[in-house]
Amino acid sequence: MKKVCFGIDIGGTSIKCGLFDDSGQVLDKWELNTRTEDKGKNIIPDVATAITEKMAEKGLSKADIIGVGVGIPGPVDEAGNVLEAVNLYWDFVPLAKELEDTLKMPVKVGNDANVAALGEMWQGGGRGYQNVVMVTLGTGVGGGIIIGGKMISGTNGAAGEIGHVHVVDTIDEICNCGNKGCLEQVTSATGIVYLANKHLAKSEQESCLRGSEVSAKAVFDAVKAGDVLAMEVAEQFGNYLGNALKTIAVVVDPEVFVIGGGVSKAGEILLDYTEKHYRDNIFSACKDTKFSLAELGNDAGIYGAAKLVLS
Amino acid sequence: MKKVCFGIDIGGTSIKCGLFDDSGQVLDKWELNTRTEDKGKNIIPDVATAITEKMAEKGLSKADIIGVGVGIPGPVDEAGNVLEAVNLYWDFVPLAKELEDTLKMPVKVGNDANVAALGEMWQGGGRGYQNVVMVTLGTGVGGGIIIGGKMISGTNGAAGEIGHVHVVDTIDEICNCGNKGCLEQVTSATGIVYLANKHLAKSEQESCLRGSEVSAKAVFDAVKAGDVLAMEVAEQFGNYLGNALKTIAVVVDPEVFVIGGGVSKAGEILLDYTEKHYRDNIFSACKDTKFSLAELGNDAGIYGAAKLVLS
Repeated sequence: MKKVCFGIDIGGTSIKCGLFDDSGQVLDKWELNTRTEDKGKNIIPDVATAITEKMAEKGLSKADIIGVGVGIPGPVDEAGNVLEAVNLYWDFVPLAKELEDTLKMPVKVGNDANVAALGEMWQGGGRGYQNVVMVTLGTGVGGGIIIGGKMISGTNGAAGEIGHVHVVDTIDEICNCGNKGCLEQVTSATGIVYLANKHLAKSEQESCLRGSEVSAKAVFDAVKAGDVLAMEVAEQFGNYLGNALKTIAVVVDPEVFVIGGGVSKAGEILLDYTEKHYRDNIFSACKDTKFSLAELGNDAGIYGAAKLVLS
Repeated sequence: MKKVCFGIDIGGTSIKCGLFDDSGQVLDKWELNTRTEDKGKNIIPDVATAITEKMAEKGLSKADIIGVGVGIPGPVDEAGNVLEAVNLYWDFVPLAKELEDTLKMPVKVGNDANVAALGEMWQGGGRGYQNVVMVTLGTGVGGGIIIGGKMISGTNGAAGEIGHVHVVDTIDEICNCGNKGCLEQVTSATGIVYLANKHLAKSEQESCLRGSEVSAKAVFDAVKAGDVLAMEVAEQFGNYLGNALKTIAVVVDPEVFVIGGGVSKAGEILLDYTEKHYRDNIFSACKDTKFSLAELGNDAGIYGAAKLVLS
């Protein structure tokens, strides 16, 4: 029998679990609720139970298991310690060690956005590449940096926190991080709504976006329908994101940028606007860097977590 | 006898050579002229001869040599191919392979700025750290990224090209890279002169910088002497560099920024102005990132080249 591994993606409301073989085939996939009460003290035992029960169900022994990879919504250091995870109500948790002590198997832990980037590199939009920067455009903006096939966590677990690259000088609102002018404020789902509302307020231009609540999806649907004001919003979005990626290109010089998260459901048009501004005046060595859409959706985390113990 | 290695730093006018033991002690150090005529075809034979002559002089056999590391002023791929080196009059040169074929020893090759960063991590201002970003402020601005003790070259050899991070929207002059608004244009030695001349032209402020040719050294000497206009120039310099490093912090999250190059001879005052702007509104996880001055000067390249074959 082929050896297998577990990929676990712990979120604030659910824990996604996957059983994989070492070629990247998912053999089983299931979810648990995240029990965050009592400072999330049940989470580790729940994960351990989920794994031992699945092993019993599948007739797997410890010798069959390569290890367990885990993604966490918070900063994680190189040793697999979670420094903090607000959504799990965790302060410092030495997760790799605690789960290893319980399961007696190798455990690796990473930040969920970084782990998702690793998943996309392995089996998603970055397949075939070793140097990947993933950008996740959701409620916020996250990211992950993969160099030579390995995830970069950073000294303080802050590598790939590209939502907090400074891109706007002229903004009054404060970012969730406490600063002003972050990429997240203008290219997340909420950031796109912010840009659209600014455009709607300052212009008389007719637009199908007027008169109802604006969403990022509505903006890109309107772009596809040829709405001029929506296209201006998309230009501004592409300008901010494309310029941030230019900077990232001269720092880590990836082969491919993979764009994921809820906003990326807009599809190729999102890449069009971003690439256009990226390629305008890019440092020449980086002019051919590829762009692709993420492919794994909410499963990127379990894939990447599994890959943590395979690489 | 301890094993040894060679660190070679090939520049446009001279080739610096070092013989090191595996603990980082330099055993010998010498230079050759770079013969760039005939498209630099003598450079590789000259390096090979320098090495074999030094081996004969020191009574070293091939079994004593761990390998030869080489730094090159141009982009280098992971396989040790030089993609281009304008100052050597080289187009594509498969340097690692050619030198290995000649010497029958392991050869590793890297971009000179990246290699200098590795040298500073090993035996200079980044000693004791594994995650280092080096910024070289010279005629231009270069850089190098070290993650987990390893140099990052990037897909196109453009990793660490942080002189071309975009930092100014309002500039008419064109950067050497063909774009506008690059970090290099405002924080290199020539960039600081540019900033100073702008300040001198637009202000009536008395300054010891008036009436003679301005240099980066003169600006920082004037700052130390309390010259108000020079201090304004230093603030602007610190603002551009500090902000660029903030962005780099949320991409690769280093333990330390090492500042080197001719401009860094200004000393601690350069760090003061840079750190002040870095720490203002930095993403909180990165607020304690350290700053230090480079220590190896022009020898950083031979140290880093040697470390290439030791790591």
